[in-house]
Amino acid sequence: MMPSGPQRIALITDFGPGPYVGQVTLRLSALVPDVPVFDLISDLTPFQPDLAAYLIPALVRDVPSETLFLCVVDPGVGGKRSALALEADGNWFVGPDNGLLAVVARRATAARVLRVGWRPAWISDSFHGRDLFAPIAARLCLGQELSAQVLDPSELVGWDYPPDLARVVYVDRYGNLVSGWRAAGVDRRARLRTDARDLPYARTFCEVPAGEGFWYEDAFGLVEVAINQGRADLTLGLKVGDDLGPPSP
Amino acid sequence: MMPSGPQRIALITDFGPGPYVGQVTLRLSALVPDVPVFDLISDLTPFQPDLAAYLIPALVRDVPSETLFLCVVDPGVGGKRSALALEADGNWFVGPDNGLLAVVARRATAARVLRVGWRPAWISDSFHGRDLFAPIAARLCLGQELSAQVLDPSELVGWDYPPDLARVVYVDRYGNLVSGWRAAGVDRRARLRTDARDLPYARTFCEVPAGEGFWYEDAFGLVEVAINQGRADLTLGLKVGDDLGPPSP
Amino acid sequence: MMPSGPQRIALITDFGPGPYVGQVTLRLSALVPDVPVFDLISDLTPFQPDLAAYLIPALVRDVPSETLFLCVVDPGVGGKRSALALEADGNWFVGPDNGLLAVVARRATAARVLRVGWRPAWISDSFHGRDLFAPIAARLCLGQELSAQVLDPSELVGWDYPPDLARVVYVDRYGNLVSGWRAAGVDRRARLRTDARDLPYARTFCEVPAGEGFWYEDAFGLVEVAINQGRADLTLGLKVGDDLGPPSP
Repeated sequence: MMPSGPQRIALITDFGPGPYVGQVTLRLSALVPDVPVFDLISDLTPFQPDLAAYLIPALVRDVPSETLFLCVVDPGVGGKRSALALEADGNWFVGPDNGLLAVVARRATAARVLRVGWRPAWISDSFHGRDLFAPIAARLCLGQELSAQVLDPSELVGWDYPPDLARVVYVDRYGNLVSGWRAAGVDRRARLRTDARDLPYARTFCEVPAGEGFWYEDAFGLVEVAINQGRADLTLGLKVGDDLGPPSP
Repeated sequence: MMPSGPQRIALITDFGPGPYVGQVTLRLSALVPDVPVFDLISDLTPFQPDLAAYLIPALVRDVPSETLFLCVVDPGVGGKRSALALEADGNWFVGPDNGLLAVVARRATAARVLRVGWRPAWISDSFHGRDLFAPIAARLCLGQELSAQVLDPSELVGWDYPPDLARVVYVDRYGNLVSGWRAAGVDRRARLRTDARDLPYARTFCEVPAGEGFWYEDAFGLVEVAINQGRADLTLGLKVGDDLGPPSP
Repeated sequence: MMPSGPQRIALITDFGPGPYVGQVTLRLSALVPDVPVFDLISDLTPFQPDLAAYLIPALVRDVPSETLFLCVVDPGVGGKRSALALEADGNWFVGPDNGLLAVVARRATAARVLRVGWRPAWISDSFHGRDLFAPIAARLCLGQELSAQVLDPSELVGWDYPPDLARVVYVDRYGNLVSGWRAAGVDRRARLRTDARDLPYARTFCEVPAGEGFWYEDAFGLVEVAINQGRADLTLGLKVGDDLGPPSP
């Protein structure tokens, strides 16, 4: 099976404020007390694993390797969707087979995808983050059997997603609009057009006057739109899922 | 006195975002550095210990035993209400005597209720979570004296609360409505009637079409109302404290 | 250089919900795995380091000493503002030189202020919390070189701020209004006047009827305005930055 070895677990969820992050963390602390657990992000948009899929590789980029990412945006909980365990470029990912892990698998230099057959003795119908995915993560940490079946990555839900996504995939606390488009290859002279404004590139906030909008390469490596000392979401009237970019000449 | 032995502390509060969870956690980390502290829930509704009382036993059900639950919804802070320490079925609870711990005490197979007389040298008038209950929790972990008086459980504020509560006790991040009614004994053919809709039972989300409402046994073991891929709170116009259920024939 | 020795790191930021607290925590856990990291506060108001400056010494007052406070409200990220490391009364502070650390430095009995010249090999343009200040904090914990220059405290941005600030510097989860004015010297017979109401002092919530407003010495040691079992922010129409107090005869 997969080699044991995760040094830490990072949670990537849509659980929001409330008890679900705490419940999963407490469950993990009982199953693998020596593995530290971190809440990396808990405000992903519910019901949209296809958008969160583009944020996950960006979130993972700057986390130390040998991390297990427990990923849950799971509107199909309790139904027929499979449970996945993925090993990719020195990290592990556990989550539902609903597109959420498709982009990180697609971009990996080397990925091994497993459909997990193991199930715990009891499981609720509505909280597989706590009752299924957390125990699977713990078993991976402990090197225990998962009754897993190796999948060809092309069997993953979402394997046919486009390589980059010109939509808002996350709105952060400042109202900045994070797109699913990697910024590395984008010409800095290009402009990003929205219904409300035609935005130039700037390296960072303090290069534009207060109240001005711009696009930039954010700390995830993605194209992001911001208003210096303002809220881009409100000013531009955009929300998660709306079209955004890519910047073009 | 009570045997020492909590392996971890879990916080159950209405502290919300902001500094209060962090302040309590830092205080505990100084007092009992070897006891891990978890933020289990921090968005309980302020001023309503009588509603949170029904969520606490449900929250506790799936947490590993030998946990000390530090429970704070405390509108009477600085007044005459007592401080309680409760030992119930292998766990410990610390909090104000305002109804918050009444249901968990009532449902326990074996409960020992103490009114705590011990006070720290200094205490603020408005933040007993940090200045009184956290130090009491630490002393329990360390097996130190609490100048405690054993109470007959029937002396607890809230001992006369009904065994289950047909009201909304919590609205989660998805807009789902959690009631104070245990689902175990409820006939699955029963319907839950609200002003807006007459809701059938479903085992889980993916058994109903998107936009449809239903009631189900949630991962707390409570009757919960949801709209598949929608927000039940907004659709049904219900909020914490409103009547909800129980489902009936 | 500065003596090594922080026993823990506490984060004081405007990062809000979302991934930034988790990203900084994961970065620190890789750099200094033996130093526990706490999220003390993450909902400071963005773009207003001059207001947060008055909350920081109040937040720090009740945290165990030998703590390193990583402080980030940083609208000038990516620009010319310096990075500071401050040693004050047994604690350490790391953050931008934009006023955020001015009040804690000013009030310290003994403060040593360093402008940090060291930079990591790579750094993003928009997330110095993760890419600059967290690594500086880690180097301080490890006693490593920071290419630092000792500053006269009077060179700090914000050194000329008033000793106390009669404005709202934070609104908490209950809608209470925290001012930047220390309560210790204020006559309890004084009244605090707002456009909407003329508020008396009360020791704590349960000394006034439900719905009544009052000012009190809060658990930070600051003048705070509350409505018993209500929201002062909504009732009085006040928000962060608005004038508030001090109470006067």
